[in-house]
Amino acid sequence: MAEEKNRKVKIAEKILDKNDLMAAVNRELLSAKGIFSINLISSPGAGKTTILEYMAGYFGPRMAVIEGDIQTRRDAERVERAGCPAVQIETGGACHLDALAVKKALESIDLDAENLDLLAIENVGNLICPSGYDLGENMKIGLLSVPEGDDKVMKYPSLFSTVDVFLINKIDLAPYLDFDVDRAIEECRNMNPDVTVFTLSAKTGEGMDDFCIFLESNFH
Amino acid sequence: MAEEKNRKVKIAEKILDKNDLMAAVNRELLSAKGIFSINLISSPGAGKTTILEYMAGYFGPRMAVIEGDIQTRRDAERVERAGCPAVQIETGGACHLDALAVKKALESIDLDAENLDLLAIENVGNLICPSGYDLGENMKIGLLSVPEGDDKVMKYPSLFSTVDVFLINKIDLAPYLDFDVDRAIEECRNMNPDVTVFTLSAKTGEGMDDFCIFLESNFH
Repeated sequence: MAEEKNRKVKIAEKILDKNDLMAAVNRELLSAKGIFSINLISSPGAGKTTILEYMAGYFGPRMAVIEGDIQTRRDAERVERAGCPAVQIETGGACHLDALAVKKALESIDLDAENLDLLAIENVGNLICPSGYDLGENMKIGLLSVPEGDDKVMKYPSLFSTVDVFLINKIDLAPYLDFDVDRAIEECRNMNPDVTVFTLSAKTGEGMDDFCIFLESNFH
Repeated sequence: MAEEKNRKVKIAEKILDKNDLMAAVNRELLSAKGIFSINLISSPGAGKTTILEYMAGYFGPRMAVIEGDIQTRRDAERVERAGCPAVQIETGGACHLDALAVKKALESIDLDAENLDLLAIENVGNLICPSGYDLGENMKIGLLSVPEGDDKVMKYPSLFSTVDVFLINKIDLAPYLDFDVDRAIEECRNMNPDVTVFTLSAKTGEGMDDFCIFLESNFH
């Protein structure tokens, strides 16, 4: 039994190492092309794609998007309609993106396109599994929406203790729901003192320009 | 490489088999005690615990609850305050419950308690990974909340094509959001013709009694 367990652990470690290696390749490639990259992680329906639609309007062809979904091409189509190139990864069941899937998707993006400054990767809708996989991004962003409840920061520490940026979306719904914004931010900062926080609504646009300007300030 | 891949597949199969075996043990044990069981699966923040709080008020000590979370005991405390016994499983990182974790939790519940008719298992907040693990329940319930968006049924087919019951929660927020209830139900029924559907709001109570009466009609 112990031997079997050891073998399992060994294989898991090998997979993680391979992912880290591939993530380093992605990071170096994007850096060489002068492209800043973000990895956007949240539950299903927290508003990742709506945020990217707003950003597509703001950045236009300065941004390219990789969309991760279990199934359907709907999100890439939404982002494309909003004005910037998008590639869909259909994971076919896998609960997170990994660096190899991103590397393959990068082959479908013109990284030499004039003015391309930002690559936004929308991870599979899942607060748990994506948090353990480096994709090669420069900035890891955790997104929580008001209807999900302010208790989710403490319930999903593997994500919220490791993100560079914490976004609270759907702030326009706060009047109708019991969500303590101060509590959510405080609980995130307790685990993650250096985190940068934005409250916003991708639907109404509230706070979105501030977030886009902040991203811009990080471009290479 | 091929050999290594085969070994991985073999181990994955072995783990699944072990889970199915344990699930059968749970199902037999609960059936022998005359307890009907449900497995409630949704994204984080879709309202699983609020539904169970309502049900605790309705069923009282006729219901016992197993709460699955990555971290924190908050949900079990909420359900206990609402009036029925609850056991918390903290998975410590794992993205779903499995039948062994449920079996262990069952040891902390008095299955011989007079009038105990229903065991409700709240899975870890995740639309993906829990859908592949039988816990030994009699009824698998998939829950989607209005703020998550009506496109989620087609995006998470591994769950919504396999559930016995499809709940649409937070129906009180429908006036503020673009959620096409008919579309969500139709897309679920297309994959899963025998699914039973309820629209409800655990917060306002709308539709909740109908759902509880339906559960009651399935008790042993």
